[in-house]
Amino acid sequence: MENCLKKMEIVKMISKDDIRKQIIEAVDSVKTNNPMAGSITNTVTINFVANAQIAVGGSAAMVYLPDEAEFLARAGGAMYINVGALMPIYEESLPRAARNLHENGIPWVLDPVAVGIGQLRTKLLCGFKEYKPTVIRGNASEIIALAGLWNLAGGSQESSARGVDSTDTVVAAKTAAIALARWTGGAVAVSGKEDLVTDGSVAITSHGGSHFFEKITGSGCSLGGVVAVYLTAADPLIAALTATSVYNLAGSRAESMVDSPASFQVAFLDELYKASPGDVADNPFDLEEI
Amino acid sequence: MENCLKKMEIVKMISKDDIRKQIIEAVDSVKTNNPMAGSITNTVTINFVANAQIAVGGSAAMVYLPDEAEFLARAGGAMYINVGALMPIYEESLPRAARNLHENGIPWVLDPVAVGIGQLRTKLLCGFKEYKPTVIRGNASEIIALAGLWNLAGGSQESSARGVDSTDTVVAAKTAAIALARWTGGAVAVSGKEDLVTDGSVAITSHGGSHFFEKITGSGCSLGGVVAVYLTAADPLIAALTATSVYNLAGSRAESMVDSPASFQVAFLDELYKASPGDVADNPFDLEEI
Amino acid sequence: MENCLKKMEIVKMISKDDIRKQIIEAVDSVKTNNPMAGSITNTVTINFVANAQIAVGGSAAMVYLPDEAEFLARAGGAMYINVGALMPIYEESLPRAARNLHENGIPWVLDPVAVGIGQLRTKLLCGFKEYKPTVIRGNASEIIALAGLWNLAGGSQESSARGVDSTDTVVAAKTAAIALARWTGGAVAVSGKEDLVTDGSVAITSHGGSHFFEKITGSGCSLGGVVAVYLTAADPLIAALTATSVYNLAGSRAESMVDSPASFQVAFLDELYKASPGDVADNPFDLEEI
Repeated sequence: MENCLKKMEIVKMISKDDIRKQIIEAVDSVKTNNPMAGSITNTVTINFVANAQIAVGGSAAMVYLPDEAEFLARAGGAMYINVGALMPIYEESLPRAARNLHENGIPWVLDPVAVGIGQLRTKLLCGFKEYKPTVIRGNASEIIALAGLWNLAGGSQESSARGVDSTDTVVAAKTAAIALARWTGGAVAVSGKEDLVTDGSVAITSHGGSHFFEKITGSGCSLGGVVAVYLTAADPLIAALTATSVYNLAGSRAESMVDSPASFQVAFLDELYKASPGDVADNPFDLEEI
Repeated sequence: MENCLKKMEIVKMISKDDIRKQIIEAVDSVKTNNPMAGSITNTVTINFVANAQIAVGGSAAMVYLPDEAEFLARAGGAMYINVGALMPIYEESLPRAARNLHENGIPWVLDPVAVGIGQLRTKLLCGFKEYKPTVIRGNASEIIALAGLWNLAGGSQESSARGVDSTDTVVAAKTAAIALARWTGGAVAVSGKEDLVTDGSVAITSHGGSHFFEKITGSGCSLGGVVAVYLTAADPLIAALTATSVYNLAGSRAESMVDSPASFQVAFLDELYKASPGDVADNPFDLEEI
Repeated sequence: MENCLKKMEIVKMISKDDIRKQIIEAVDSVKTNNPMAGSITNTVTINFVANAQIAVGGSAAMVYLPDEAEFLARAGGAMYINVGALMPIYEESLPRAARNLHENGIPWVLDPVAVGIGQLRTKLLCGFKEYKPTVIRGNASEIIALAGLWNLAGGSQESSARGVDSTDTVVAAKTAAIALARWTGGAVAVSGKEDLVTDGSVAITSHGGSHFFEKITGSGCSLGGVVAVYLTAADPLIAALTATSVYNLAGSRAESMVDSPASFQVAFLDELYKASPGDVADNPFDLEEI
């Protein structure tokens, strides 16, 4: 087993201005270049994932079959793998996609939905440890449970995930998130009332969003898909933060316009589409060195 | 074969006021406790089912695999099984879920979509007879065809279902609905212009709704999912009526706001979310002793 | 291999007035008769396909299993087959459906999504050559690639499809579209900024639509499903043109009302529902003899 702890180094921490500049570049690049990020994801929210990816300027392609998964893993600039509502063919498709992504150095996002439930999900998620997803996105309970499954700091062997819902706070998942990011060498995004994004060196708290995110299905899944879109244009930390920021911005704006969840979902997707690079970069966040 | 006819007893029939009180309790309990009701359902309307369940205050979780189906059958307070657009794995998942639900006394809803079409659907629905779904929800043609498949009164061996659409009236399905309810010891909800809910002792006609229910896909499926949510908090008759009432209320309200089906779907989900316990209880219904 | 070139004949070309009259009849017939057109289609956009089919007045039914596919192939007035996001069972279901459709003379629509990607998709699409889909609907890259796969004029062995997106123009696909239509004896609809519909004898360019069609997922898929609905009531050329016209009309109208893609999708489905027979017939098109 690899030692995932980086050696201590004296490095100048990235500044908030640097981050904002990189967010602007990521949003702008995606709007200009319409990059494709393929997905293997669950049928419940697959349409929302695709429409969110398209709304921010990306292009979506969803597959189930192993050879198509390998094709997407090589053809796109990044890929999104979500283990919700697994189908039998995923036993073959997901490892083949992940192995190809890892071997070809293509960035990918893992969404460990409902980690802890079911034999196939556990087997797949265990196997992904070696393929080191570039960004892991989940709610607090999922992040804690995945760290537990991978025997990393902050993890728990006891999943407190209740299906797709979190029963833990984002703060409680911080240690696990940092450990996961240090293991993968990528970034981790923990979704909650305030969102945490970390690459193991810095912890960023992103503000905004909406209570309606919990009143529609697929806020988290579609966020994962949008992280994959930004991974075609930015490093893991910036991609995760850019996606989180545009979600928090569009969520806040949409919430101010409506009073109910279905109207919110329409307004939210509209605001994803409208968000300018500068607006996304200006969505408030706190930066902390770890 | 069991004798499903209950012995005649002198019992005081439940009053409309009792019913309204129990509806208020069910709606309130779900809004307060956010209960999870898992589903195995078709991909066409799976997103609508989840969003409707969440809108009324519940929590959704959808699976396909047999061991995950068993997990949900034990983990949730109730479950929803819909046989539309069957996938091959359902041959294993659905009987295992239903058997677990039955053996553990967990309430569940069966939606016999398109009963009569295809060998697997027929085999699955025959098998469900012994597992006695707590609530059966369908359109008139489906209820008549299911009673026929189960050799119960009011059933027909000739399915007049046309895919997912009904070609029979709710009134024509009354005998079948009562027979099904008496067989399961639960309740049956027949969707149509006026909806029938029965537990074999009383027949309740629920008013309201919208002609747009037939102009969008998934009104029936999502109603079944919402019945499952209320089954975590109420007996079969009340759960079926509460779900039917909130659908008729929200449908009427949404129809008054829009003139087209896609706007209707958004407004309808919004109104599901907004409906108060008292409003749901006050949605008009007629009560009749059988 | 059949010779797909028709013998030259002196025939009077259909006039624009004839076409408009037939469009009115097709739209009116569907609104009156609520015909069912079954589908085997991808999970990404399956809900949109169903709602679009219902919005124009049809009835939707989606299946995965082989015997259900055969049932739909015989039971409906037409069928829609879309090869996006293939699942393993499609290897059996799609050929059985297509063979039954062909043998029974039931019209069907093929949507060759992402032709060129994956072994199963290639195998299925090769096999469909003999079953002669009544209407083929795709973007320019898909039409060129399918003609290439079938060794017809205008085709290319090199797919320039990028997942589900086209990288070719409609004009570039004209030769391939004509060759495909002549091979099948049906019609081909090529979607793009201006849409081409041809039966191999005439080429019709349909105007209107919206740039938002590319900002939501499923514009093309749902158009294919709507072509199938009109195939229950019109010949291939008129069915393809009627569907294309109502899409261009509703797209233009919806675009004039909104400024963002999610609002557009809602408005677009609403306008599909509202479009009158006369309005659809009056959507502008150019007619050219080939």
